[in-house]
Amino acid sequence: MLNIGVIMDSDFNNVEIDLEGRNYSIIIGDNLLDKPEIFNGRDFGRHAIIVTNTTVGKFYLERLRNSLRGKFDEIFDLILPDGESFKNWENLNLIFDALLEKACDRKTTIFALGGGVVGDMAGFAASVYMRGISFVQVPTTLLAQVDSSVGGKTAINHPRGKNMIGTFYQPKLVVCDFSTLSTLPSREFSAGLAEVIKYGVIFDRDFWNWLNSHLSSLIGREPVSLSYAIRRCCEIKASVVRQDEREEGLRAILNFGHTFGHAIEAGMGYGVWLHGEGVSAGMVMAAELSWRLGLVDADFVQLLIALIRRAGLPTKGPVLDANDNAGRYLELMRIDKKSEGGEIRFVLIDGLGKAMVRAAPDSLVRDVIDACCEQV
Amino acid sequence: MLNIGVIMDSDFNNVEIDLEGRNYSIIIGDNLLDKPEIFNGRDFGRHAIIVTNTTVGKFYLERLRNSLRGKFDEIFDLILPDGESFKNWENLNLIFDALLEKACDRKTTIFALGGGVVGDMAGFAASVYMRGISFVQVPTTLLAQVDSSVGGKTAINHPRGKNMIGTFYQPKLVVCDFSTLSTLPSREFSAGLAEVIKYGVIFDRDFWNWLNSHLSSLIGREPVSLSYAIRRCCEIKASVVRQDEREEGLRAILNFGHTFGHAIEAGMGYGVWLHGEGVSAGMVMAAELSWRLGLVDADFVQLLIALIRRAGLPTKGPVLDANDNAGRYLELMRIDKKSEGGEIRFVLIDGLGKAMVRAAPDSLVRDVIDACCEQV
Repeated sequence: MLNIGVIMDSDFNNVEIDLEGRNYSIIIGDNLLDKPEIFNGRDFGRHAIIVTNTTVGKFYLERLRNSLRGKFDEIFDLILPDGESFKNWENLNLIFDALLEKACDRKTTIFALGGGVVGDMAGFAASVYMRGISFVQVPTTLLAQVDSSVGGKTAINHPRGKNMIGTFYQPKLVVCDFSTLSTLPSREFSAGLAEVIKYGVIFDRDFWNWLNSHLSSLIGREPVSLSYAIRRCCEIKASVVRQDEREEGLRAILNFGHTFGHAIEAGMGYGVWLHGEGVSAGMVMAAELSWRLGLVDADFVQLLIALIRRAGLPTKGPVLDANDNAGRYLELMRIDKKSEGGEIRFVLIDGLGKAMVRAAPDSLVRDVIDACCEQV
Repeated sequence: MLNIGVIMDSDFNNVEIDLEGRNYSIIIGDNLLDKPEIFNGRDFGRHAIIVTNTTVGKFYLERLRNSLRGKFDEIFDLILPDGESFKNWENLNLIFDALLEKACDRKTTIFALGGGVVGDMAGFAASVYMRGISFVQVPTTLLAQVDSSVGGKTAINHPRGKNMIGTFYQPKLVVCDFSTLSTLPSREFSAGLAEVIKYGVIFDRDFWNWLNSHLSSLIGREPVSLSYAIRRCCEIKASVVRQDEREEGLRAILNFGHTFGHAIEAGMGYGVWLHGEGVSAGMVMAAELSWRLGLVDADFVQLLIALIRRAGLPTKGPVLDANDNAGRYLELMRIDKKSEGGEIRFVLIDGLGKAMVRAAPDSLVRDVIDACCEQV
């Protein structure tokens, strides 16, 4: 069974990390990049390649490299362009080219230093290079720390759909250094808050309440609030993934807001709306649909809109097609990975803190889209 | 645990196939393509896509399609170009394009109808499309029936190395219809015999003896001999894979002759030498190296050469570089997936029927290459 442990870094000398079989740990703490001891006692092989992007690389590549020094025969790096629009085969292939050019064998670990795009691509590369080598996630965005680096989903985008090509492949270790969030632009930070809000809505009413009273200190990036929120999100995600690693049931609830959100991302062109922005507008639409299906009351939708707005995130979706906007959304949503037999399966809220997956009549979905979009 | 069962088709009405968890069956028989009942009682989802190539498609696509009729909402097909040189990302992507164009969801099964190239590519596509859908191997070459369709290795080639990008991903079912071998060109049939010979050498002295006395009837494609040989090869492969699915130890012995063989394939350009031809010359080189290391006597090498020659296969490798042929082989072999820390690991014979994996001094390997190559 997959077992994911969450470790808070209070004093690293005291931390015991137990990695057996496919278990792995998420370490959360401040300035972890400067603590080489977190990598001690683990078998990462002979070669390391740090995959990062142009933005993150200039802040953190040398720090990670220094921490890994002496632990490998050779440490390479590969700096990819930054952005969702680069999460494609061409850039994935740059990772394979680098690995082969440096004659990296199976005793190689890929370190993914960056946000969700870097983590998804580096993880996918690790899962298929020579049929699988080790990888370590070092997420540097809020979104990656609370969501994409945990749970072992890897992917690249296809022009016809987000994350269409990928694997389930667990990292050996996840290192969440929240000091790296200090350089994150506000827009990216807000985008990460979308996933944080998601966890409260789908799984944890107490966390939802905590978020409503601590959102300002989170936005102010106060370490105590940040570390609590990151830990709670990782715990929730680990708990869900532990029960359903390959998304055969429960795990699908983590896609709340994502069915509409992916349509927004694909419809606008990858990278125009950030993932978290699409998810935000998508959560409002999914909440609105839940209300129209009688699962929640109208107040809940308003409270969600208010929290999303306070987080600096969009509460309306963009118009993707002036002639038939709802039709365009439906078309894009039908290729969602949760779809079955052409029927779109939505993650809906069945009372705060509880989510479910079900289909809905097209006419109702059209009404929701009409009510929740505006020209941007 | 992975469990692979081999079923001989004597009377299909009586066959019980037990598929639980990741277990699966290999069905071996005559004219299985015309027996739709072999697919009964299995959950393959709503959509089927048959991936084949231009050569095999014209013989067998309609027969497989007829057998699947009525079992799916929709059955699509995709016909790829034929040959190892097409086992690359561009053609893999054609499979994704077809799946997305037809809005295939996770309830889709890919049927790989063809030889090793089709099986490897379709299997890889199945393992990563939406993070994994079902697939069924319907191998139509001897090589695929005895080797590549069994054991769950999938891959595409990278310009710098064969099978560099891939996954371990088990099919739901393998259907070996040896009537499909009737249309196989002699050169391809011989190439398949290379892997048949391999199993005797590395694992089963009795099978080796049987091969020496039945090679002519095999080459004559006599059904009794064919079905025995295919079954025995599948049994050996299943037994090895069951013990070591992810090639952490034992499974590597299945690569006897492949380290040299992959260098030949890559060095000549994919498709110039057939895989089985490269493996044949590679087995001679590996046997020669085993002899020079004192593991087998010279007679064994001569017996192997004689059997390979009778099978219509090359017993000498090509000269890849007139100036430094051994250097070129070594360069190509260093990126073999079994290499560790730049050290090539060879599968060697430690007495007939027994294989081992170990390194060898470069100077000795150079002598072997010099002795075993000739200008073609």
